[in-house]
Amino acid sequence: MIQITTQTIQIVAILISLLSLGVAAWLYSWVKSQPSSNARIAEIGGYIRQGANTFLRREYLILARFTAIAAVLILIFLPHPIWSGNITQNIWMAVSYIFGTVLSALAGKIGIQIATIANIKSAEAAQKGVKPAFMTGFRGGAVMGMAVVGTSLLGVTLVLLIVGDASAVLGFSFGASSLALFAKAGGGIFTKTADISADLVGKVELGLEEDDPRNPAVIADNVGDNVGDVAGMGADLFDSNVASMAAALVMATALGGPDSKNVAMVFAYAAIGLLSSVIGVATARIGKNGDPGKALNSSTYVTTAIFAVLTALSTYIFNFEWRIWGATAIGLIVGTIIGLTSDYFTNDAKPPVRAVANASKSGPAFTILSGFSYGLLSALPSLIGIAVTALISYYICEPLGSGYGMFGISMSALGMLSIVGMIISNDAYGPIVDNARGLAEMGGFGEKVIAIADELDSAGNTVKAVTKGFSISAAGLTVISLLGAFMSEVNTAASELGVQGIANFDIMNPTVFFGLIVGVAIPAVFSAMLMLGVDKNAQRMVAEIHRQWDTIPGLKEGKENAKPDYDKCIDIATTGSLKELIPAGLVAIFSTILVGFIGGASAIGGFLTGNITSGLLLALLMSNAGGLWDNSKKYVEAGNCGGKGSTAHKAAVVGDTVGDPFKDTAGPSINTQITVVSLVSSLLASLFLMYSIF
Amino acid sequence: MIQITTQTIQIVAILISLLSLGVAAWLYSWVKSQPSSNARIAEIGGYIRQGANTFLRREYLILARFTAIAAVLILIFLPHPIWSGNITQNIWMAVSYIFGTVLSALAGKIGIQIATIANIKSAEAAQKGVKPAFMTGFRGGAVMGMAVVGTSLLGVTLVLLIVGDASAVLGFSFGASSLALFAKAGGGIFTKTADISADLVGKVELGLEEDDPRNPAVIADNVGDNVGDVAGMGADLFDSNVASMAAALVMATALGGPDSKNVAMVFAYAAIGLLSSVIGVATARIGKNGDPGKALNSSTYVTTAIFAVLTALSTYIFNFEWRIWGATAIGLIVGTIIGLTSDYFTNDAKPPVRAVANASKSGPAFTILSGFSYGLLSALPSLIGIAVTALISYYICEPLGSGYGMFGISMSALGMLSIVGMIISNDAYGPIVDNARGLAEMGGFGEKVIAIADELDSAGNTVKAVTKGFSISAAGLTVISLLGAFMSEVNTAASELGVQGIANFDIMNPTVFFGLIVGVAIPAVFSAMLMLGVDKNAQRMVAEIHRQWDTIPGLKEGKENAKPDYDKCIDIATTGSLKELIPAGLVAIFSTILVGFIGGASAIGGFLTGNITSGLLLALLMSNAGGLWDNSKKYVEAGNCGGKGSTAHKAAVVGDTVGDPFKDTAGPSINTQITVVSLVSSLLASLFLMYSIF
Repeated sequence: MIQITTQTIQIVAILISLLSLGVAAWLYSWVKSQPSSNARIAEIGGYIRQGANTFLRREYLILARFTAIAAVLILIFLPHPIWSGNITQNIWMAVSYIFGTVLSALAGKIGIQIATIANIKSAEAAQKGVKPAFMTGFRGGAVMGMAVVGTSLLGVTLVLLIVGDASAVLGFSFGASSLALFAKAGGGIFTKTADISADLVGKVELGLEEDDPRNPAVIADNVGDNVGDVAGMGADLFDSNVASMAAALVMATALGGPDSKNVAMVFAYAAIGLLSSVIGVATARIGKNGDPGKALNSSTYVTTAIFAVLTALSTYIFNFEWRIWGATAIGLIVGTIIGLTSDYFTNDAKPPVRAVANASKSGPAFTILSGFSYGLLSALPSLIGIAVTALISYYICEPLGSGYGMFGISMSALGMLSIVGMIISNDAYGPIVDNARGLAEMGGFGEKVIAIADELDSAGNTVKAVTKGFSISAAGLTVISLLGAFMSEVNTAASELGVQGIANFDIMNPTVFFGLIVGVAIPAVFSAMLMLGVDKNAQRMVAEIHRQWDTIPGLKEGKENAKPDYDKCIDIATTGSLKELIPAGLVAIFSTILVGFIGGASAIGGFLTGNITSGLLLALLMSNAGGLWDNSKKYVEAGNCGGKGSTAHKAAVVGDTVGDPFKDTAGPSINTQITVVSLVSSLLASLFLMYSIF
Repeated sequence: MIQITTQTIQIVAILISLLSLGVAAWLYSWVKSQPSSNARIAEIGGYIRQGANTFLRREYLILARFTAIAAVLILIFLPHPIWSGNITQNIWMAVSYIFGTVLSALAGKIGIQIATIANIKSAEAAQKGVKPAFMTGFRGGAVMGMAVVGTSLLGVTLVLLIVGDASAVLGFSFGASSLALFAKAGGGIFTKTADISADLVGKVELGLEEDDPRNPAVIADNVGDNVGDVAGMGADLFDSNVASMAAALVMATALGGPDSKNVAMVFAYAAIGLLSSVIGVATARIGKNGDPGKALNSSTYVTTAIFAVLTALSTYIFNFEWRIWGATAIGLIVGTIIGLTSDYFTNDAKPPVRAVANASKSGPAFTILSGFSYGLLSALPSLIGIAVTALISYYICEPLGSGYGMFGISMSALGMLSIVGMIISNDAYGPIVDNARGLAEMGGFGEKVIAIADELDSAGNTVKAVTKGFSISAAGLTVISLLGAFMSEVNTAASELGVQGIANFDIMNPTVFFGLIVGVAIPAVFSAMLMLGVDKNAQRMVAEIHRQWDTIPGLKEGKENAKPDYDKCIDIATTGSLKELIPAGLVAIFSTILVGFIGGASAIGGFLTGNITSGLLLALLMSNAGGLWDNSKKYVEAGNCGGKGSTAHKAAVVGDTVGDPFKDTAGPSINTQITVVSLVSSLLASLFLMYSIF
């Protein structure tokens, strides 16, 4: 048993963060040093990189304004109105908020940077075999993973060390979330706008092949994969990871102050999670003709095992509470199980995908009906998993004292997210090798190389299902612990204000119930607005494609010098996506504020619960149904149920098109929406206590 | 101010019930006495009647077995296990349960009986003009309305008068619900199985016209309209109406005993609601060439106004509480507003239907995406309406004393359902005139008559949207008050058992939270199972149609003596629908029991809340999206966006096919599922208190 101060552990956490950033830098230079020679690929890859940067620049420009306004509002109102509180607190809150947005933006930028290099390098490497191509793709993804988790742990630790107040971590987390809302939802609208428009005009109307360079939207489409799947996903998981630490820290601080053993545990476990991911990434290997899917999964399991062993060891050495370790372990185990069940619903070797492919033989209505039904069913195991994790981790930790039950839930969320570095690496691997496959085709690398690229791509899809289930569930547990953090904030504020706090969120209390029922509607409205946004934005882009096609001389004929204006399409997708996203984000934020000022803190308790319940249901439904339709289409295209060109194929394509915004725009953005709403609530807790109608 | 005993009011309620049954009988004989002469129509109408009766016979046979098993279980376990309680109570509970199933079955039977007569008579009457055809259709529907509400009020009053215990009313209500589960969900699977199979094989494969008598499924299709929309809807509203009274009575009794003024108010208001509907039905008129839609709506508004005035009068005369009257009035007003908002999302004169029709020009994926998005949006106003009603009616009644807030919510549900007699009349009018239109076409009555029938049919569709929004919201408020009734039952049981009761359902309590998250999944799983059931059952029926087409000599050629075996198709739809329904119903019931024995009464509080939140969201989404797709298709068929045969039309047909099981199978069955789950919970309250793991 070794006595160690919380500060020492925080310093170790900073060192491990720096280690992971160092590993990211090393992997970055490794990927960059891989050979590339093909000029055609370099040119197209250059367009993609340039387009992605155009999007990021525009996005960050709008975000900068949003951040500035929000920072001023925070300065005036949070955590207490400037006229009633301590101005230093408000300044730190605003600074932490800005710091959160900047670090998250930085992680996104790094991800885009490496993904648009690794795609080219991986395509080149595929000429030499599975092994080098896999390693390039995987290490490219790992740059993102290490950078995201390294910066998030670094940021949280610095904020707590410098400001010394867990509420400031909530401000940091809100910064990360508001960026994630732009990056994930905005990127989601961007990618699907480009994808749908390119297909609708290019393939259906003009009869062009996929990725025909004459199609003005073709680069926007490839850019979309990067801004949606790489930058968006990274910002989303940065956000979840920070939010789970913030929630745990708020409760740990409330339980025993900023220097307590609980706070030390949060940092110790988070640092060990990151260290395990570093080891998992560094040791990932594949045999010369090995199976890339197995390689990805085995490195995930290695990371999980290392995390479990190291946390147990640290618990023994530093005399932490074994019960809290138990809650963390439960989160990790259930996370893995949930990942496997989402695999069941989206894997083409399993009954649901095949049943939907089969139903497609009777036409698209049956593709939709059966896929939607399986999507609804798929929510059950994940919801049970989340419910059981919450129940068990609460009861394991409850004997430690009042408030420990809820802290246990937040530690189970931390456990589920402990291997997030590995998850991001695997997730970012997907779009990199997907892009590499496209580049290999455009570069004319031949059948054999494309077959290798295909194998890598398909491994990415399989792993994606598992990681997606993992991250939705972890986000679910995180928002549950944010509910606990909200109550803790309310009661801290109440004791500061000398007013009565809140003992519970009783469903039979009419303000709680009122908040609950209104809260149920918000994720539904938010996701509907995003999907309708994709629709509207695609119409604008289709018009632009028509304009270019009709007015640029020589474009139709494919003349050497007749280049379409790719940037214009990227600009439309960018501007439109941010334009469509802002109202949706504002609806979520203003409805929270409205409910809070009508029904007070207890209505917000209900409101958050309503958001969590309907948000989890819709996110699971949309992500899984979308994945299922995608794989059903691929299953039919592989020659089943009539194969390409059959009735079943046409129907499966409809399913896939419906599934695209489900799984890439609306579904994964709901997590972020709920997190934003939860953080806004916690930050405004004292205002809701002071001013409300009921 | 007149002093009156509760018993006197109950006797008046019985007299008004008998009056409404008398009016039903008079309307029945009036409709039956209308002329009919066309032999062709009589023949087809006879097939439909026979088929509907086949379904009912089969359904009631299966239900009888289910009822027998359930009655034995009730006798042994409810309200207390036979070894620990008073056997007389258990006997009364079982008898009340059986009584509930029998009365609900009777109302369904009456509805089918009149609907399959009124369709023929209305078709005949259309030859003479709008006025007689409207009156026949409307009065046919009114028979159902009067019979359902009359028997439900009669049943509840008799049970309370004879048994003297509000828990027995819960047993009666459970009887009504278990029948409604069969009638609504089973009827919903039946009608969509038949509809889809008849279209798939008949129209798409064999190129037959709609309603070609050579199609073996054609009668099953027409039968489906009656068993799904008439009998199913009737059982559903019988169930909601009884459940709302049961919830109000349980709380009223808990507040002041069975003879209190609160109990008197429940009966007074329910009786006045019925009386208002009788007056509304009896005075419904239409000018010679009047607008049938206006006639339906104006009789609804007349009923509403009469109810508001008479309840105010009774409150003044009998010195009831004005605050409770206020809660009832709020329910009535918000119900009307919600009805109008669902109209917005499904009316083809409003933007959403037109936007979806417009999106269909780009193909079926856009029909689905935009319709689904508007369906999600449509949940918002209804949810806000329910939330506001609950909040206001609680606060209006809270000053009356502890427990009155929740009682106020139950009275607002009663207010929303007060005009249910009128709603059922309008709802049953729809399928009658729909059938009449088909018969007019098959009977060769000519363009002019069909135009009249079309006008009547379209009025039915418009009114349907309003009544559907009304009934989902009323069911929502009812299940909320059932949550109150559950808590009241738990505490009654706790004081009888001498154990600690439950003070609240705190979301931060882990068992409540556990129940909540699991509860969210149940309506999703239930509706998915029903939709997959339609899919499976349709496959069986398609096989049977093929068999008949290939083996019955002369059928293809349409020879005089070659009749398809209509009954065989009806039998398959019947057997299959009940077979697919039972697992779904059992999942709902057993998950309740499981959660209750794991987490106890507080987990059930969360479980019911989870069911209510996700159930309301899904029911509103599915019903409104389904109605929207239906009307978008009709809008395109009316010549817009390219008209019949265009790309938009094909896409709109896909939307309509997806929408069919959404709006006619899954969506409306969710209400019943939640009611069943709520009643099972209340009935098992004391068992959950005694035996649970956590």
